[in-house]
Amino acid sequence: MKLNCDLGESYGAWRMGQDDQVMPLIDMANVACGFHAGDPSVMQKTVALAAKHGVEIGAHPSYHDLAGFGRRSISHSPEEIQALILYQLGALEGLCRAQGLTLSYVKPHGALNNDMMRDMSTLEAVMAAVRSYRQDLPLMLPVTVKHKQHRKLADYVGLPILLEAFADRAYDDEGQLVSRRLPGAVHQSADKIVDQAVSFAKKGGVYSSSGNWLTLPADSLCVHGDNEAALSGIRAIRKALTAD
Amino acid sequence: MKLNCDLGESYGAWRMGQDDQVMPLIDMANVACGFHAGDPSVMQKTVALAAKHGVEIGAHPSYHDLAGFGRRSISHSPEEIQALILYQLGALEGLCRAQGLTLSYVKPHGALNNDMMRDMSTLEAVMAAVRSYRQDLPLMLPVTVKHKQHRKLADYVGLPILLEAFADRAYDDEGQLVSRRLPGAVHQSADKIVDQAVSFAKKGGVYSSSGNWLTLPADSLCVHGDNEAALSGIRAIRKALTAD
Amino acid sequence: MKLNCDLGESYGAWRMGQDDQVMPLIDMANVACGFHAGDPSVMQKTVALAAKHGVEIGAHPSYHDLAGFGRRSISHSPEEIQALILYQLGALEGLCRAQGLTLSYVKPHGALNNDMMRDMSTLEAVMAAVRSYRQDLPLMLPVTVKHKQHRKLADYVGLPILLEAFADRAYDDEGQLVSRRLPGAVHQSADKIVDQAVSFAKKGGVYSSSGNWLTLPADSLCVHGDNEAALSGIRAIRKALTAD
Amino acid sequence: MKLNCDLGESYGAWRMGQDDQVMPLIDMANVACGFHAGDPSVMQKTVALAAKHGVEIGAHPSYHDLAGFGRRSISHSPEEIQALILYQLGALEGLCRAQGLTLSYVKPHGALNNDMMRDMSTLEAVMAAVRSYRQDLPLMLPVTVKHKQHRKLADYVGLPILLEAFADRAYDDEGQLVSRRLPGAVHQSADKIVDQAVSFAKKGGVYSSSGNWLTLPADSLCVHGDNEAALSGIRAIRKALTAD
Repeated sequence: MKLNCDLGESYGAWRMGQDDQVMPLIDMANVACGFHAGDPSVMQKTVALAAKHGVEIGAHPSYHDLAGFGRRSISHSPEEIQALILYQLGALEGLCRAQGLTLSYVKPHGALNNDMMRDMSTLEAVMAAVRSYRQDLPLMLPVTVKHKQHRKLADYVGLPILLEAFADRAYDDEGQLVSRRLPGAVHQSADKIVDQAVSFAKKGGVYSSSGNWLTLPADSLCVHGDNEAALSGIRAIRKALTAD
Repeated sequence: MKLNCDLGESYGAWRMGQDDQVMPLIDMANVACGFHAGDPSVMQKTVALAAKHGVEIGAHPSYHDLAGFGRRSISHSPEEIQALILYQLGALEGLCRAQGLTLSYVKPHGALNNDMMRDMSTLEAVMAAVRSYRQDLPLMLPVTVKHKQHRKLADYVGLPILLEAFADRAYDDEGQLVSRRLPGAVHQSADKIVDQAVSFAKKGGVYSSSGNWLTLPADSLCVHGDNEAALSGIRAIRKALTAD
Repeated sequence: MKLNCDLGESYGAWRMGQDDQVMPLIDMANVACGFHAGDPSVMQKTVALAAKHGVEIGAHPSYHDLAGFGRRSISHSPEEIQALILYQLGALEGLCRAQGLTLSYVKPHGALNNDMMRDMSTLEAVMAAVRSYRQDLPLMLPVTVKHKQHRKLADYVGLPILLEAFADRAYDDEGQLVSRRLPGAVHQSADKIVDQAVSFAKKGGVYSSSGNWLTLPADSLCVHGDNEAALSGIRAIRKALTAD
Repeated sequence: MKLNCDLGESYGAWRMGQDDQVMPLIDMANVACGFHAGDPSVMQKTVALAAKHGVEIGAHPSYHDLAGFGRRSISHSPEEIQALILYQLGALEGLCRAQGLTLSYVKPHGALNNDMMRDMSTLEAVMAAVRSYRQDLPLMLPVTVKHKQHRKLADYVGLPILLEAFADRAYDDEGQLVSRRLPGAVHQSADKIVDQAVSFAKKGGVYSSSGNWLTLPADSLCVHGDNEAALSGIRAIRKALTAD
């Protein structure tokens, strides 16, 4: 069970995250590609830092929305979505290439990720874009109860996929994350977070917030490293996952 | 003697140029990469149009300055210049790749081009960026009386170069273009333009505006296609170059 | 019946519209404020041109989306909408002020306009913003069958409003413009356009595309000046409106 | 002797500074206007915070360069400089106006400030812009040995000025700040910073780094509040200035 984290989210004079401390703790870095965060210099440093720690580099493409950090849905045609993804994959690969590296996977960011999980034509556009870029480049998407359907679509497109889960978020009965606006959406207890991580890793699923078992076969856990507590959380998850 | 032209300079709702009409007349398309012009969708269409007409695709990277169309110098460290070039080469390649195409060369745009011709450390940063991206990807730069020095630097870096000349611009004794602010900087006579193109192609140089011969061995001529007269100019140059 | 037109939509090196030719033909100029089009220099020139022709200057604020020309809805809180409108009103007023001018009205652009007509909380946020800027600054909004409701809300807020209609667009039974994606949405016949303008001016309404009479009391007609035909159209409307 | 500080430098999801803690300690807030930092919502909150603490609101206009935080010089014509300043003054005033507030002064940011102090035509353009906006709106500029010359120009233009000094920076014999790239440019000792503040306030000048007395009559001291030490520094300066 690999750990992935969003990184490279600084921009110009603005710092975000503590990449230096998170990178040694994770397996996969979702690197911002300049459309919601990450200017070329930030991307260059993030790629170098990932390489130093042997961390896989994933593209983290977004709608073009610096002011909104890619969290706001912006209407696009499928062709436009393909173009903006190809642009960002290439841009990050350009910086990788100069360091003898290559992309390992693609994980859409924020509103683009939400939109593709809600709207099948957006998901098809995303898949078509990644497939046309490189046929063996996996698309990472959240695991839900529709994961078999998503895998079928990916097989049809001819694209490998990776399914990610969240250790610190409650799931509803559809296998969707409970909205942050609702109480109990984010686990506060360190133990609960570790338990959920272990449940995904060892049992292939979790209980929903209403108590129903969800079979959700995840390839990777998304973690956050924004503060000291978050870093401790990652270490605790790592320790629990590698135990016995 | 190949003809190159700046293309793909539209952005969102704003149209610039008449790419459909220029593309069939040229050999090499310098495609804007989103930093001074060209959004991902424009780039996608420009790449497809180039492919349709068998035109080589060159990256046309710029300082990040949409409001100034990349014509204003912006101070950068060499590392920043490398990062912004790699970003843009990759971005355009991302769109090429989805269509089974690849970049044929790199020609810096506007102020970045001017700065690299004026400042050796900028030129070194540009060359280092292109070299680290792909060792056989040529950098196109204006031919001046310093062309041997430029070639030596490129050989040292291990980078192929292409030298470009202008048919419609007067040259000073340094082999630099006469500033547009000075009278006589831009040739108005169609005959003069064709003659200068032929002089570059057949005699390997031109006379400066003060009447001195300049040996300037060019690989490509930069042409413009902004209006009907410009299109006729390209056709006239093409005809003259292919005659006997 | 005043004629209003969107102007000042160039940006940097990109030209849009033919403001020099349109300005003498209209009464009210909706001036882009930098968020979907119009950089500060373009705004400065547009304001000067309006003043030269005695044309009222209206702010044309938008979501911040240059790449999408403000035509794409972007989710905002009411506070954010107020902030972005105040920013743009002030910015345009700054340029007016230096020329001894002031804003005459506000007309939201594109997706922001659509959203406020579809969502009452957005309309309230827009009204609150304009009201807090200046209590006698009118908000221009499209006239629909809900115009009485809109006027009540404006009265409640304490804001004057102006209602605008379109001469070249078909109306549905709600008094909404027929979507451009549907056939017959845009009148092609010059006569039909003039007739509709006259109908709004003299009869206070139009027939919907399904043949029902719509009482739509408009203060201003929105016209376009993108090409020669459009300019002729404005002249024809002007002539018909001033006849007898 | 008033204390001024750059504030409102967050942007979207990126936080910068600790405005809540700095605002109660200062007299004048230099508020970013969206071109190098500060989106409309950030500006709105900053203005409200200043009002809450009775702090004067100054516009802090910049070249349009988010990626470079306004620290990079960008070539502009005098007309363009006037337009971008008017735009930003107005934008901030728009947000002030909704809260019944108004601008108290203007202090150009970063590279624009440097450029106006180095190039007289830029300073003239800045002065012309502020003067055309409001004739009693003071321009704040760094005090140097040329302060009489600057005041003469301002008198000629008909513009009030405010001169600012720095407590934590060494001055050279021209009354310019010693470049940050040189050793000793920034005072590290808290005592030295307080002493320099007192020297400006009580003696009307400071000794240059080479030991020569500089008469530099400052109206305001620029302070920084980036971290806890900086906040303590402001408190120490305030205490020393109000002592006897």
